Amino acid sequence: MRANPVESPEALDRLAGTTLASEPFFLAARVSGQGSGAANRRLAELGLKVRHYSVLALACSDVHPTQRELSHYLLLDPSQIVALIDELQALGAVQREPDPRDRRSKMVVATAAGRALYRRAKKVVDAASSDSLSALTTEQREDFLALLRLAAFG
Amino acid sequence: MRANPVESPEALDRLAGTTLASEPFFLAARVSGQGSGAANRRLAELGLKVRHYSVLALACSDVHPTQRELSHYLLLDPSQIVALIDELQALGAVQREPDPRDRRSKMVVATAAGRALYRRAKKVVDAASSDSLSALTTEQREDFLALLRLAAFG
Repeated sequence: MRANPVESPEALDRLAGTTLASEPFFLAARVSGQGSGAANRRLAELGLKVRHYSVLALACSDVHPTQRELSHYLLLDPSQIVALIDELQALGAVQREPDPRDRRSKMVVATAAGRALYRRAKKVVDAASSDSLSALTTEQREDFLALLRLAAFG
Repeated sequence: MRANPVESPEALDRLAGTTLASEPFFLAARVSGQGSGAANRRLAELGLKVRHYSVLALACSDVHPTQRELSHYLLLDPSQIVALIDELQALGAVQREPDPRDRRSKMVVATAAGRALYRRAKKVVDAASSDSLSALTTEQREDFLALLRLAAFG
């Protein structure tokens, strides 16, 4: 997904008037693309993209995800996940450890440096999320988050 | 974005309990990925993916988009847009026409066959959208759509 393009207000109005612009999959993709674009622009200062951030966040969590679980959780191909982990490992932010639940499998775990990087990145991502939802009031954001969670997890 | 993976309910519960799963950019990406995955699986019978569908929908609209506008509207790189138009043109669904607003530019316009394909595809996409939002009540879907529109277009 590329960074947000420059769109004229007139062009945006034309798009907003189409049937496509009332379809949920299109709107969700646009909101997602705008959010990721905003987050990527801000994360660049840390040498990260939003996909690295998502892997790092899960590596810092109690989930102790395997590569396979990361692929499922982030809806990315295993090859994409391996590349993201390799890049985070090169930054010293994560390491692969044997999974005590299944010794043939590897867990992805954040290092101390990775946890520090995550805390910095989270502030940046939170600011980007806030920017990209600036059209919504505080109450609308809460409603939107609750509905997104319901749509995402049932 | 790959098709939805098979996730165990336990794995999904673990993911839903993480900090990441309360961040709007992550939730929007997941909803978008699930929606696109569901639409892609159903559109396969028509030889389309959801990105083709989006280009075709705009080519059928009154917007008469140029390639550049499609790139802006769909947040895709110009090279991706060119490939999608080429594929739709090979199906006989769209053609490039000189733009009366700017003769150096090309508009992407649906053919009669393209309009018929769009009507079939829209039914399929609507069914997929409905499936992927099955956790929401009718009223929640209306609220969700309104908030998505606000987040997408301000």
